[in-house]
Amino acid sequence: MTERMQDTLGTLVSRSARRNGSAPALLENGRSMSYAQLDEDSNRFAQHLLASGLQPGDKVAMLSPNSMEFMVAAFGILKAGLVWVPVNAMLSPPEVAYIVQHAEARLLVVDAQLGAHPAWSAALPALGVPLVRCGPGAEGAGTLAQALAGQPPSPPALEIDENALALIMYTSGTTGNPKGAMHSHRSVLAAVMSNAVTISVVPQDVLSAILPLFHCAQFSMSAAGLACGAAISIARGFDPAAVLATLARDKVSVIAALPAMYGALLQHPARAQHDLSTLRLAIYAMAPMAPELLRRLMQEFCPRFALGSGQTEMFPMTVYFPPEQQLQRTGNCWGQSTPVNDTALMDADGALLGPGQVGEIVHRGANAMLGYFKDPEATAAARRFGWHHTGDLGMWDEDGFLHFKGRLKDLIKTGGENVPAIRVEEALLGHPAVAVAAVVGLPHSEWIEAVTAFVCLKPGQSADAGALQEHCRATLAGFEIPKHIAIVETLPMTSTGKIQKHVLRANHQALYR
Amino acid sequence: MTERMQDTLGTLVSRSARRNGSAPALLENGRSMSYAQLDEDSNRFAQHLLASGLQPGDKVAMLSPNSMEFMVAAFGILKAGLVWVPVNAMLSPPEVAYIVQHAEARLLVVDAQLGAHPAWSAALPALGVPLVRCGPGAEGAGTLAQALAGQPPSPPALEIDENALALIMYTSGTTGNPKGAMHSHRSVLAAVMSNAVTISVVPQDVLSAILPLFHCAQFSMSAAGLACGAAISIARGFDPAAVLATLARDKVSVIAALPAMYGALLQHPARAQHDLSTLRLAIYAMAPMAPELLRRLMQEFCPRFALGSGQTEMFPMTVYFPPEQQLQRTGNCWGQSTPVNDTALMDADGALLGPGQVGEIVHRGANAMLGYFKDPEATAAARRFGWHHTGDLGMWDEDGFLHFKGRLKDLIKTGGENVPAIRVEEALLGHPAVAVAAVVGLPHSEWIEAVTAFVCLKPGQSADAGALQEHCRATLAGFEIPKHIAIVETLPMTSTGKIQKHVLRANHQALYR
Repeated sequence: MTERMQDTLGTLVSRSARRNGSAPALLENGRSMSYAQLDEDSNRFAQHLLASGLQPGDKVAMLSPNSMEFMVAAFGILKAGLVWVPVNAMLSPPEVAYIVQHAEARLLVVDAQLGAHPAWSAALPALGVPLVRCGPGAEGAGTLAQALAGQPPSPPALEIDENALALIMYTSGTTGNPKGAMHSHRSVLAAVMSNAVTISVVPQDVLSAILPLFHCAQFSMSAAGLACGAAISIARGFDPAAVLATLARDKVSVIAALPAMYGALLQHPARAQHDLSTLRLAIYAMAPMAPELLRRLMQEFCPRFALGSGQTEMFPMTVYFPPEQQLQRTGNCWGQSTPVNDTALMDADGALLGPGQVGEIVHRGANAMLGYFKDPEATAAARRFGWHHTGDLGMWDEDGFLHFKGRLKDLIKTGGENVPAIRVEEALLGHPAVAVAAVVGLPHSEWIEAVTAFVCLKPGQSADAGALQEHCRATLAGFEIPKHIAIVETLPMTSTGKIQKHVLRANHQALYR
Repeated sequence: MTERMQDTLGTLVSRSARRNGSAPALLENGRSMSYAQLDEDSNRFAQHLLASGLQPGDKVAMLSPNSMEFMVAAFGILKAGLVWVPVNAMLSPPEVAYIVQHAEARLLVVDAQLGAHPAWSAALPALGVPLVRCGPGAEGAGTLAQALAGQPPSPPALEIDENALALIMYTSGTTGNPKGAMHSHRSVLAAVMSNAVTISVVPQDVLSAILPLFHCAQFSMSAAGLACGAAISIARGFDPAAVLATLARDKVSVIAALPAMYGALLQHPARAQHDLSTLRLAIYAMAPMAPELLRRLMQEFCPRFALGSGQTEMFPMTVYFPPEQQLQRTGNCWGQSTPVNDTALMDADGALLGPGQVGEIVHRGANAMLGYFKDPEATAAARRFGWHHTGDLGMWDEDGFLHFKGRLKDLIKTGGENVPAIRVEEALLGHPAVAVAAVVGLPHSEWIEAVTAFVCLKPGQSADAGALQEHCRATLAGFEIPKHIAIVETLPMTSTGKIQKHVLRANHQALYR
């Protein structure tokens, strides 16, 4: 050990445990786990992983909705010097198989309830990696509880370099397969400390974990809470009635959710039965909120709302639209950079743009990914001119606030998930009756954008929307399946035969309204 | 430039300037300097330094009380990839000369008013390094303003590694000469972000800079403010009437000062004339506060008080005693570690101690120094068993709060400064009439500890206290000169002839009461 024992994602937990081991770290369904227990159990899992033969640098994948054991397993992997590969638990089995194989995972931690689902019971063994079952209902052999038993509560005797690879999070691009954004302990911790500063986390806070912990946004916010000794109130998914009860029971002070979720919480008949007066800040993500809804939420739900944005490649939050500015700037205002990173707008030649000009949103800073796993070309393309290119378009207003102006890339943002249009088009084209498919995102009050397909059939073939949706189910995640499929005779084309998606979007803006 | 443009002390300013360039960064005497101007002027100074032939890694010393130009010069040096060596402006010329030479400084930035003082007008040329004069009254050739003129407002085209040496701060140990604690951009920024989290800095804050910016505590707190886009209200020194006026004029929200300063502010007749209602947090440093004083301050001055502690080697704050715990724990409670570092108590064999046991306070974390400049032996001694050894003794209480229990090393803490007893004893022994000198710190309401000397004269010689104090003035800083010198016949000794300082302290506890 050197004096400068480096900061890692593991020390984030162990230091809070040393400061106040008896304080609650995790809350879930009325249960509580102290910092001491989170620290010791994650140490035990780290000891188990290394004792089972895994070597520092090996990848361990995880497929689980939010749970206390999710956090124990994640920090155990990280404390062992292994590389954590959290996988989106909503993906289809073929999608998960691609990630597990591409990441070269040596082990998969899987939620027991998820694994028992018919869609998974056959698919899991086919992944070809050893399993550790965790979460509610995990019993008997091969469980996390069994892995912890008999292991020492002390951390493994190893030094972890803060610049070592800590995690790979797979994210959808515009091409078919997801790409693995690699982060070091340092790059994630830069975002974690920045989040803690940006939302002023104090040890007395209770932060919600309603959004998936396998995504960068919720994980970094929860890690910020743990770094500061706050408590994390875990919800397994979004059920409005259950979330309202949890907010009241756990006295949540900071909540993060999607705009549609806030709408559901506001309108739920049980809301009035719960005391939500402990809420001091509500963060919404991924999309702006209608001013009328926002105004009502600020009056009836929480006095302070803020918008946080970011992406897996540039660990979030990268930009923040603070409470004081809400309702002052309309439209798609994303706010300003957080202290940890630099944001600029860039044209195709690498020149930085001033107020009023539309360009690609680019970032740089200590929270930037190391690169895409096994994809040097995509890595180089993403960091042209020394900045990370987001694929989003933006514009500065005169006061230096960033406004979102659409996407350069053909990506649909639906319910907090990114869906590459081409991925859905390929699935549709796999159906024998489909000749051409064009997939766009159209405005939707609940999903922000709804995945929507326009399909031309082959001459003499027939298929209805329901059959095509069912066909997609074999290869796509639920959130990727088009909400609406229109069978059409022709699609708008350029003279060179390229489908004009902007025409489709303009003509069908009101489809879900 | 790589995508992961690293975080440095320079980007801390440039990113806040990019977010909100027109916001005030520095306030001083009714003047204001925007973030854009601080960013551009520090870029200009960086350009000047490199154009004048300095190479990355060269050392630039600075001798200045607090001023706007102090900050411009400091960030200019840091943005040029040079090593900043801030020197305590209260030291005597021989003490400064030692540091300038030991640090191999190639340039000295000096406050014009300080440099014009008779004590300095002859001593400055003898330092043998080129000078840049700054601050109020700096006119004509060789000034900071002249250095900036004609330089471009853009940063120098160079990449600075976050782990490169950024600054050397000299600190008194128990041996004669001060030691240079080396810090990287990374180690200072770790403390800066931790401070921002610990005191929940928001862009709307106005943070005082009353304590010297050449010390680690005030610099890291001010840098935390700048990282978050807050304003820094600069005071050149502590004059109670002027500070009260400044707090009201600048609407200061967070103040840091020494306990005696708070006492003076509380008792000052002009206090009632000033609106201090913007104060949300008052940080005191270096010593506990009497409960009666603290209670009155919380009622009449600021509702929330907190104690921050640290040292140059482990960039502060390392431990924090938060507002909620004030008045709950009496005595020398120092609180708990900040998120950026680990604190433990260690015995002489390297074993960590539990509650109720007294041991040396040790730390580790990303805020630890790289080592002492040109002193590998002292570096190795300070980091025994992989932890930084502070020389302070502490004890954990049952709730995990750290209590200060005295010092292992023979060091006096007076008015926010460390004074090694041996340094004062050597000065006294330099007087021809002095045979033996023993220097201790005794409790003092204003200075926390007052430097106090017990002196035996040589047979047949005579000297009074005034003459000995005047003699000390040639080699010691004002704060190092004993407040009281007792001429005595004998000193308490062990059987082996070692002076029993603990007996002196016990017998004279009430000297200043």
